Amino acid sequence: MSSTPLLPVLLSIVILLSGVSTTTTALTQDFCVANLPLGADTPSGYQCRPAATVTAADFYSGALARPGILIRPFNTSLASAFVQQYPAVNGLGISASRVDILPGGVVPLHTHPEGSELLYVLDGALVAGFISSSDNKVYYKEVNKGGMFLFPQGLLHFQYNSGDTTAVAFAAYSSSNPGLQILDYALFANNLPTSYVVKGTFLAEAEVRRLKTMFGGSG
Amino acid sequence: MSSTPLLPVLLSIVILLSGVSTTTTALTQDFCVANLPLGADTPSGYQCRPAATVTAADFYSGALARPGILIRPFNTSLASAFVQQYPAVNGLGISASRVDILPGGVVPLHTHPEGSELLYVLDGALVAGFISSSDNKVYYKEVNKGGMFLFPQGLLHFQYNSGDTTAVAFAAYSSSNPGLQILDYALFANNLPTSYVVKGTFLAEAEVRRLKTMFGGSG
Amino acid sequence: MSSTPLLPVLLSIVILLSGVSTTTTALTQDFCVANLPLGADTPSGYQCRPAATVTAADFYSGALARPGILIRPFNTSLASAFVQQYPAVNGLGISASRVDILPGGVVPLHTHPEGSELLYVLDGALVAGFISSSDNKVYYKEVNKGGMFLFPQGLLHFQYNSGDTTAVAFAAYSSSNPGLQILDYALFANNLPTSYVVKGTFLAEAEVRRLKTMFGGSG
Amino acid sequence: MSSTPLLPVLLSIVILLSGVSTTTTALTQDFCVANLPLGADTPSGYQCRPAATVTAADFYSGALARPGILIRPFNTSLASAFVQQYPAVNGLGISASRVDILPGGVVPLHTHPEGSELLYVLDGALVAGFISSSDNKVYYKEVNKGGMFLFPQGLLHFQYNSGDTTAVAFAAYSSSNPGLQILDYALFANNLPTSYVVKGTFLAEAEVRRLKTMFGGSG
Amino acid sequence: MSSTPLLPVLLSIVILLSGVSTTTTALTQDFCVANLPLGADTPSGYQCRPAATVTAADFYSGALARPGILIRPFNTSLASAFVQQYPAVNGLGISASRVDILPGGVVPLHTHPEGSELLYVLDGALVAGFISSSDNKVYYKEVNKGGMFLFPQGLLHFQYNSGDTTAVAFAAYSSSNPGLQILDYALFANNLPTSYVVKGTFLAEAEVRRLKTMFGGSG
Amino acid sequence: MSSTPLLPVLLSIVILLSGVSTTTTALTQDFCVANLPLGADTPSGYQCRPAATVTAADFYSGALARPGILIRPFNTSLASAFVQQYPAVNGLGISASRVDILPGGVVPLHTHPEGSELLYVLDGALVAGFISSSDNKVYYKEVNKGGMFLFPQGLLHFQYNSGDTTAVAFAAYSSSNPGLQILDYALFANNLPTSYVVKGTFLAEAEVRRLKTMFGGSG
Repeated sequence: MSSTPLLPVLLSIVILLSGVSTTTTALTQDFCVANLPLGADTPSGYQCRPAATVTAADFYSGALARPGILIRPFNTSLASAFVQQYPAVNGLGISASRVDILPGGVVPLHTHPEGSELLYVLDGALVAGFISSSDNKVYYKEVNKGGMFLFPQGLLHFQYNSGDTTAVAFAAYSSSNPGLQILDYALFANNLPTSYVVKGTFLAEAEVRRLKTMFGGSG
Repeated sequence: MSSTPLLPVLLSIVILLSGVSTTTTALTQDFCVANLPLGADTPSGYQCRPAATVTAADFYSGALARPGILIRPFNTSLASAFVQQYPAVNGLGISASRVDILPGGVVPLHTHPEGSELLYVLDGALVAGFISSSDNKVYYKEVNKGGMFLFPQGLLHFQYNSGDTTAVAFAAYSSSNPGLQILDYALFANNLPTSYVVKGTFLAEAEVRRLKTMFGGSG
Repeated sequence: MSSTPLLPVLLSIVILLSGVSTTTTALTQDFCVANLPLGADTPSGYQCRPAATVTAADFYSGALARPGILIRPFNTSLASAFVQQYPAVNGLGISASRVDILPGGVVPLHTHPEGSELLYVLDGALVAGFISSSDNKVYYKEVNKGGMFLFPQGLLHFQYNSGDTTAVAFAAYSSSNPGLQILDYALFANNLPTSYVVKGTFLAEAEVRRLKTMFGGSG
Repeated sequence: MSSTPLLPVLLSIVILLSGVSTTTTALTQDFCVANLPLGADTPSGYQCRPAATVTAADFYSGALARPGILIRPFNTSLASAFVQQYPAVNGLGISASRVDILPGGVVPLHTHPEGSELLYVLDGALVAGFISSSDNKVYYKEVNKGGMFLFPQGLLHFQYNSGDTTAVAFAAYSSSNPGLQILDYALFANNLPTSYVVKGTFLAEAEVRRLKTMFGGSG
Repeated sequence: MSSTPLLPVLLSIVILLSGVSTTTTALTQDFCVANLPLGADTPSGYQCRPAATVTAADFYSGALARPGILIRPFNTSLASAFVQQYPAVNGLGISASRVDILPGGVVPLHTHPEGSELLYVLDGALVAGFISSSDNKVYYKEVNKGGMFLFPQGLLHFQYNSGDTTAVAFAAYSSSNPGLQILDYALFANNLPTSYVVKGTFLAEAEVRRLKTMFGGSG
Repeated sequence: MSSTPLLPVLLSIVILLSGVSTTTTALTQDFCVANLPLGADTPSGYQCRPAATVTAADFYSGALARPGILIRPFNTSLASAFVQQYPAVNGLGISASRVDILPGGVVPLHTHPEGSELLYVLDGALVAGFISSSDNKVYYKEVNKGGMFLFPQGLLHFQYNSGDTTAVAFAAYSSSNPGLQILDYALFANNLPTSYVVKGTFLAEAEVRRLKTMFGGSG
């Protein structure tokens, strides 16, 4: 049997049949590594980098190898590997983050508008919970090392360290860009007028002002 | 040209070609009216009622012809035409609701985890706004009769009456079941322990207790 | 507790972790306002405008505040708020239109190839109906002020004024760009040869010519 | 190296880890052969037959091996392999049909509300065309043996034999159940009142009555 | 033709098979915990358990807290938390598994037909790689503790321990049921006739027989 | 009734309501013909060519009118009409290919990572089969002229000529770009080190070297 160079033949077939210029580089879409600086975003994700420029290094990320920067009031470090930090997840419907919650620390109430989250506890112990919509039922549980907990898309959820050591968890998301809306930031870390926050939450005005000061908001 | 009965012929074709029992009734899926009492829910929606039992009346709904029941602390009436109230929307990616906001009334901060919302003001004037995730930017605007505003999926948003008369609005959603998570209910109308709410929001404990009392929560 | 500027810290985290140029502006995709003049369309919608250029005004539209231009033979005004008129709906799976049907007027048989429609009657009375595929069953009903009717995706449907006053309705769609194929325009308002129309519909040639003249077609 | 029975080990893993009764039979979803007589339809398709009952014969179909029954006024035979005739396509987003168009025959104007169509001509010659929405532009072309033509989802399209021999074509669809709305049947083969058809199409009443008689409609 | 009451019969079937109380109200679909023993699978996933029976424990899983059972020839333990083992992931587009690769061990070439995989290395070091389709390019890299690697949907990929200690990794998938097709099992652990394997792979017949013996296949 | 030019009126409506520059050309998305040389790929497909440049010729393809180039070791010709060869399929979820299998020829084991395949036999006879994931069950059957067989997405499958004449088949896919991963090419036609192939498959090293020579691989 022949040992003739099959790859060139295959390429020839592709070129002969294609009926389009051979200068296009995006021949397949096994993957679509995001072309972040050049390519505009679309509803389905970023434009793809030309396949010829993609190497194995693009599929690797060390973004979650160490804790992220500590966020003071929460005593928690957050590191993200969403599409902006890990362009290879573009279009693949998956991404990740890592939280390191110091003793006494919390991941405050927040939502991911664009994805569900599966949390795997790497170290320590934490309480994880979420609140369902419509019937406002609370689902929470202590999760120890090796345990998992699920937060369905778009629902308010939280975690806090329930042990004496730093709790570390790896979170995977069902989206390349799940978004993160932290309740305290949404209410108190922007210029939404205090009177609107009061109207929209029934919180006392003084409490809103206290938290706006704490989280750096104005208005 | 013939006036032979074409429909029977067409049915015969279907029957002859089908190779399956002719007792099946689900011939098409132009629509899938939810079989609410019998059919279990699936990730894509409810099972369909047999097509032969569906009539024009199923595609009609009067659920939004009048204001819903008044919700006291909000001074707002809410009526919904989601899949539970309007089974014909099942699988069609659309549903609706109606809000009637009395003078001074509000639709407090809330999210729809499963859909985006397009609001059309039928009467009066209201301020509508939402907060983006990640950068916590606020987008709000007064909307008068005939105006529309958009709330993207999963983001905290609110409305309040900015006029002297009842503001009425029709809302359409990009889902047959968008969900509704009202922030005050999620935090204060259930048995989520006060200490968790404090941890997860940085609100003062007394404020949490005050609002739990107001919204009927415990713990 | 600290009141240190949290937002800058958060931004620093994003920047530090991102590993990409900080000049990219499309940081999130809570929304993707269509970049209509510049951005090419894709199967999932238009490219997004840079988030930094988006303001609250983009989420507002007055396109349906008044009737559209009257279409003579139909005695109906049509105004649309699809993605071309309301760029903020891009990627959100929703859009809207408004019809004002004069007494005796109609919305003639048409389809929306890319979306289902939920019609809410704002004023007057109309008959709304659609025809299912495969079994050609007709579903129609009179709908008065406050009533709703559903037209599943891609099916022929129609409305006509059944009262003495102008019937006004707001329509929401399950797509940012549902399309609109008006049967009379598709058959009679273009250059499709008369002989093809006759072949494809079994209409009499004279009738095709009469309607081509009426709707401005040729051939 | 060991030749120990790996399959039993693998099954043991599945059973041990599953934490649910081992009596469930739907272990995977490589495929979901429609359980037509028993299983209710859902928005995503029919329920799956238990995997243990599925054999290679389910993935085979002879439904398109011969022409379907001749439809008189069209001089065309139609055979379908949609999910009702070919249950294995359920959930796979594909199905097929076959048309045999006698000399002088046509496939009259119709739409597939739920799928796009790719037509491959097996024999003879035909003219294939469709009409775009909104701008009503006509795209048509003669296609000979071995040629293909595309009809995008939901748009009115047609074919007619342009040669002297029977034209045969195989059509693939992007849906397991694309639907079929034949314009003449939708307008004239049901009980839609003549006056509605006239209102909705601007056809002359006598022409509507002539075609209702031809296609077996009433009203 | 019979006029026997088919609808009542069909309804009876549905009722008999449904096996769920007709009182279920399934008010929301924040989540859809799989009803594994009772509910049939659909193309979008399993039927949902009634919401009233769901507790926080359903969102927790300990399935990946310890290594799975050792698979001898691979020197690797595999534990899965797909929908069969972790019913709460149903419909959420996410799931997980854990591999423990002994020194010298491998995860042999395999695909996940229904999902992409994001691998996070918990301990040790491994080489991870995949092969693109069409151009057969190989992407591989050593990944140490804290590193991540991506395997796009449906592509052949592999891992092997490149260190002296057990390599442990957590894998997240973009599907609740990504599937697992291990190449050696697909070729050599079933009754696919040896002659077919030879035809389909160009492997020598003796080699096919050797591997069929090793992996427990026949034929 | 008026014969005034309706099309200009309709265009005026669009222009008046649009509130955006009238220079944009992508007015609808009935279709999105791929702009291959200019437009970057996105996760949902290529950018669209401006609608004004699209003609009926774009929806036609002759790519499958004749056999493709013969691939020697397989004795099979392959011609593809994926999005690169047939840009009009972009975004429509469908594409096609044609195989001509000489007597004794095969389509070796391969997968389509991005789509399911429906095979229609045009001439001759072939054996078609696939292997399910997880339980490694084999489904295969002889298919004669006019018969069809289904290969679900991502699963290993094969065909071989079981007759005395060339077997010809038309294949439709549920994706505009299903991908093609031929097992022999993935393992033996690239620079994947022999030692990795041995680790990942348990094939004997000599056999790997023999096949690397046969298929043009290195390493």
